[in-house]
Amino acid sequence: MRYVMVQIPNKPASTMPPAPRPVPTSADVARLAGVSRATVSYVLNNTSAVRISEPTRRRVREAARELGYVPHAAARTLRAGHSRMVLMPTLPVPAGPLYSRFVHDFQGAMSRLDYTVVQYGASGVGGDEAARAWAELRPVAVLVPGTGIGPEGVAILKRSGARAVVTLGPEAVEGAHAMLLDQADVGRGAAGHLHARGRRRIGVVVPEEPGMELFSAPRLAGAREALRGADATVTELPLAYTEEAADALAARWRGLGLDAVFGYNDEYAMLLLRALRDAGLRVPEDVAVIGADDLLLGRLLRPRLSTVRITLPLGRELASLVDRAVRNPAAAPESHALFSVAVVHRDSS
Amino acid sequence: MRYVMVQIPNKPASTMPPAPRPVPTSADVARLAGVSRATVSYVLNNTSAVRISEPTRRRVREAARELGYVPHAAARTLRAGHSRMVLMPTLPVPAGPLYSRFVHDFQGAMSRLDYTVVQYGASGVGGDEAARAWAELRPVAVLVPGTGIGPEGVAILKRSGARAVVTLGPEAVEGAHAMLLDQADVGRGAAGHLHARGRRRIGVVVPEEPGMELFSAPRLAGAREALRGADATVTELPLAYTEEAADALAARWRGLGLDAVFGYNDEYAMLLLRALRDAGLRVPEDVAVIGADDLLLGRLLRPRLSTVRITLPLGRELASLVDRAVRNPAAAPESHALFSVAVVHRDSS
Repeated sequence: MRYVMVQIPNKPASTMPPAPRPVPTSADVARLAGVSRATVSYVLNNTSAVRISEPTRRRVREAARELGYVPHAAARTLRAGHSRMVLMPTLPVPAGPLYSRFVHDFQGAMSRLDYTVVQYGASGVGGDEAARAWAELRPVAVLVPGTGIGPEGVAILKRSGARAVVTLGPEAVEGAHAMLLDQADVGRGAAGHLHARGRRRIGVVVPEEPGMELFSAPRLAGAREALRGADATVTELPLAYTEEAADALAARWRGLGLDAVFGYNDEYAMLLLRALRDAGLRVPEDVAVIGADDLLLGRLLRPRLSTVRITLPLGRELASLVDRAVRNPAAAPESHALFSVAVVHRDSS
Repeated sequence: MRYVMVQIPNKPASTMPPAPRPVPTSADVARLAGVSRATVSYVLNNTSAVRISEPTRRRVREAARELGYVPHAAARTLRAGHSRMVLMPTLPVPAGPLYSRFVHDFQGAMSRLDYTVVQYGASGVGGDEAARAWAELRPVAVLVPGTGIGPEGVAILKRSGARAVVTLGPEAVEGAHAMLLDQADVGRGAAGHLHARGRRRIGVVVPEEPGMELFSAPRLAGAREALRGADATVTELPLAYTEEAADALAARWRGLGLDAVFGYNDEYAMLLLRALRDAGLRVPEDVAVIGADDLLLGRLLRPRLSTVRITLPLGRELASLVDRAVRNPAAAPESHALFSVAVVHRDSS
């Protein structure tokens, strides 16, 4: 192994900063354009209810440009009572490929409907405390992944002017629209498949990285549930996402007496599969392996990785639900089960 | 291949929504608690400058809770003139694993410094237009990845009250702090390595997915630049991230007469490597392959994938720069080259 370091030289700081100037206000724009503040507001917010001549509109726009005046979204929201902002709290873990793609698509779809999606950084607070922090931004809609909100949180958001709250979780929450999405289904599907393939001593990988329990706990619970009453055992296998950890688990594999493993997702499954084979175990003869997410990379592996394919709601379907809910805030909450899981049987199980 | 569909039944919508209530204001809280609006504001914003008795504070808090009153971040910002919000525009493509991890770490580090990171959805606008949209949220600091801002955009943000603008791109922008990070270095490193390994006819994968040119164009340019004047050719290889596209490219590989390929990143490199081997080509004997990102999965591959390791700035280093800049907005812009690339030579090249 060889490392070639390419170092980029430090560039000097370019120039001194300009002397701080006061932030221009709409009053400054009004003064420069020789109009009232109300006129500035009408022009810059494109209000059509008031007749203002084109030359005046032009003068206001030019004055705003000259001063570098930008309307304040906050002030605008205060006046209008609602924004076009859709707030989404971020997950407590780095987004995986499936979720990144989903957020990207949802954002694009909302943007085409003239909303802006804002992902709010998890600040370590949860429950109603979190709902209160989101409410401070006065979003017109909130999309909450996971189990991060209860009925009181929904009520807090609605009282603060949110017209729609949509949850992406295992159960509907009172007052909110629900996209039902239960991680336990993934574990159920994987364990059910391994059992159907004749395996009886089944390991379930549980990532050790902090925050992952949001997904791993229900996946493990789903696997246990699927095998309850069946002639099979479920063994929890904590695993960090490193080659060393996978090698260590593979080294003590024969002592565990397992004949199958659900790898949590494709990435952990690929990591463990490689370590098991390096330790002399045959896949699937000695150990059947299944992942989840149906990543392209799992299909490239030999043996091809079996997986649980997870279909998240389409960005544009979810966007249209949010838009409908915003335009009709009094409508009864909708509950959709667009999330589905399907076992894809390949060569590793 | 076998698919087992696990379908989740639709649950009925739980209850009718509560009748819409007016959004409670601080005046409502003041009325219920029997105090002035100023007192409500002092208590709920934890102002210590004013002496207010503990029983009064408790009365205000209880009234706020009873009414479900949440202070309005916008109103607070209007009063205070600045927020604790750090805005980051999202990338125009789904975040890859490296970037997801970086955002997650940065967010955690800012959160420990009592800021909230908000990722602003790309809305299809760019340049000063985008800066104006971000400015409307009145962030205290803005972190711009890529080349999405110029000196005028920086000025717009500063005039709107942003105390710090930090860019994560190839060049410093006037008025902004810079974390220098040039994607061309990745291409330079990869092409330089392949040339040093004796390869002369080098293909460079360019992903066909929309938005990827933000990264792929400078990587290709860097590869070309590294080989300028050398006895080597660079061939652009458009490739979609599908097995079919990779197989099609592999099928016409011999006609291209290439002896090496820089796969854009590890994921495209792994996809192409598999297709090349399935088409009967030997790696690295017939074709040397190198990726970028140093994903764990590339290390698991046989032959082990050579790669360009990219080190992004640490979340906490960047967070401390942002915090320093916010607290001292008049300081001269800093320029840091924390981003570095290192070629990791394994078995595929």
